[in-house]
Amino acid sequence: MKTSVTVLGLGAMGTALARAFLAAGHPTTVWNRTPGRSPELDGLGAVRAATLTDAIAANGLVIVCLLDYASVHEAIDDAGLTEKVLVNLTNGTPAQARSTADWAERLGAQYIDGGIMAVPAMIGGPAASVLYSGSSTAFEQHQHGLAVLGRATYLGADPGLAPLHDIALLSAMYGLFGGALQAYALIGSEQLSPTAFTTDLLLPWLTAMLTSLPRMANDLEYGAQPGAAGSNLAMQATGFANLIQAAEDQAVSPEILLPIQELLKRAVAAGAGDEDLAALLPHLTR
Amino acid sequence: MKTSVTVLGLGAMGTALARAFLAAGHPTTVWNRTPGRSPELDGLGAVRAATLTDAIAANGLVIVCLLDYASVHEAIDDAGLTEKVLVNLTNGTPAQARSTADWAERLGAQYIDGGIMAVPAMIGGPAASVLYSGSSTAFEQHQHGLAVLGRATYLGADPGLAPLHDIALLSAMYGLFGGALQAYALIGSEQLSPTAFTTDLLLPWLTAMLTSLPRMANDLEYGAQPGAAGSNLAMQATGFANLIQAAEDQAVSPEILLPIQELLKRAVAAGAGDEDLAALLPHLTR
Ligand SMILES: NC(=O)c1ccc[n+]([C@@H]2O[C@H](COP(=O)([O-])OP(=O)(O)OC[C@H]3O[C@@H](n4cnc5c(N)ncnc54)[C@H](OP(=O)(O)O)[C@@H]3O)[C@@H](O)[C@H]2O)c1
Ligand SMILES: NC(=O)c1ccc[n+]([C@@H]2O[C@H](COP(=O)([O-])OP(=O)(O)OC[C@H]3O[C@@H](n4cnc5c(N)ncnc54)[C@H](OP(=O)(O)O)[C@@H]3O)[C@@H](O)[C@H]2O)c1
Repeated sequence: MKTSVTVLGLGAMGTALARAFLAAGHPTTVWNRTPGRSPELDGLGAVRAATLTDAIAANGLVIVCLLDYASVHEAIDDAGLTEKVLVNLTNGTPAQARSTADWAERLGAQYIDGGIMAVPAMIGGPAASVLYSGSSTAFEQHQHGLAVLGRATYLGADPGLAPLHDIALLSAMYGLFGGALQAYALIGSEQLSPTAFTTDLLLPWLTAMLTSLPRMANDLEYGAQPGAAGSNLAMQATGFANLIQAAEDQAVSPEILLPIQELLKRAVAAGAGDEDLAALLPHLTR
Repeated sequence: MKTSVTVLGLGAMGTALARAFLAAGHPTTVWNRTPGRSPELDGLGAVRAATLTDAIAANGLVIVCLLDYASVHEAIDDAGLTEKVLVNLTNGTPAQARSTADWAERLGAQYIDGGIMAVPAMIGGPAASVLYSGSSTAFEQHQHGLAVLGRATYLGADPGLAPLHDIALLSAMYGLFGGALQAYALIGSEQLSPTAFTTDLLLPWLTAMLTSLPRMANDLEYGAQPGAAGSNLAMQATGFANLIQAAEDQAVSPEILLPIQELLKRAVAAGAGDEDLAALLPHLTR
């Protein structure tokens, strides 16, 4: 008999989580603030709780995935959490996770915080990954059930660890997407096809550039070899002016690129002109 | 007998270009403003020209790779370009490429502009790609020789096309690298290992997120399905505040992320809260 589970929140993500539990044969109770959302779940066997209190009372394992931590606290209040395992997959900061863990533990629950590294369509599939931190006892007890959502990685007892890694990964993702949008804006300014550009050039290029990250990480961890920069920052700062100018010429806003230009300039002005990208990092830390 | 070639500029990139030609058996004449740079080329058979004029006179195919277009014009002036094929692999804007093409053609040269999609260490290897535009006759004549540098793609007769695509790809790359730096700053703020983070989480995550780009491009080209957003912009704008707050909490500057937050807010304020990332694009175009 598979562990039964409650899913609070049926937005795009909560709905995907509930579907994955149902598809894997876990009896699943669902609740959403606005009733009747995601009616397709009924046909898949979900039990719809009339109230949040009923939803929490139904099962020992309670997954919550709402808009933000303010929604979580507004919705849950203290509705019967004693002896429950609360797994909060709502996006938040490390500090929010730590104070929510304290609150849940005061109410007698075991608390796990999680960061979902997937879009809803990926949940339950091979590319989905979910990071967890918080109660190790609760994680050990439920890791097999949680693994139906995606690869489950436990990062440690500090509940802030999953959100820290989640936010680091999301920051990297928004950099990627921001840069891609800038590229699409330039390509679109000449009425060229974004799909052809993506297949022929953008994906192969970004895939190749991903292979620079281990080198960058290595430089950060062990220090860069002096004189080994294949792409020195002085040259990069010079070339960067072309990225801004070309955007202006094509009536595309350079706003997404400007802080990276500032960072390059700052590092070069501070004497890092001969170094490579890892030398930018100290200029990003206060 | 392989085409002989001149390489002007022996910075990190020009040196890599010369090495690749030499490795493929092309007789190669080199010149650099500061004499004696990259002495290892002498042992590989490079002929060092005493002056720029000698270097250009030596061969019909002249590759130039200097810091920027200002350096190219300062260095070359009008030094005997008649009947030459000038391939300019210096980074520049589409407008700079078009006016440099006009200048070279006035001097009797055939002109090709190029964008190198590789770092020096990749040149001559399977992941290197170089984009070309400009004289189609000259490209057809020399494409086999040029292919020793990396996969050679011809984008059209307008010399601005290679730099436009080059700059679009570099913009995407700097988004990726900027986002990765933000992630490393957060990870570093807790003394966690950047190399372990890269292997275990960052590379798999960004590789998975790259697969969103064809969908984004499709939405841009054909329009998004209404109501199909797996990650609606209103939710993303709410979650984005956590990225900024977490950076602040960890004493990491959020500067790289701020314009993306502004873009999200602008799009949501304009009514795109139910849409997905492609709906940001109109807000980046003037
Ligand atoms: N979608 C993704 O790609 C993705 C990926 C990773 C992580 N996440 C995270 O997953 C969480 C949910 O995202 P989503 O995509 O499902 O968002 P969504 O589709 O916009 O759904 C938001 C959900 O939050 C509920 N909610 C909002 N305010 C509430 C309140 N005060 N009390 C009770 N419920 C409230 C909504 O209920 P109503 O139906 O009543 O409005 C709805 O169920 C977010 O923290 C997000 O950052 C999402
Ligand atoms: N490295 C990369 O990762 C990479 C990738 C793609 C494209 N590129 C592009 O390739 C070009 C060269 O980059 P790089 O990495 O080789 O840069 P670099 O190592 O900094 O070398 C710069 C070169 O430009 C020469 N130069 C500068 N000003 C000059 C002037 N006024 N007259 C004559 N020569 C001048 C320098 O000569 P001196 O030795 O006399 O100073 C040197 O040969 C740039 O446009 C860059 O954007 C580089």
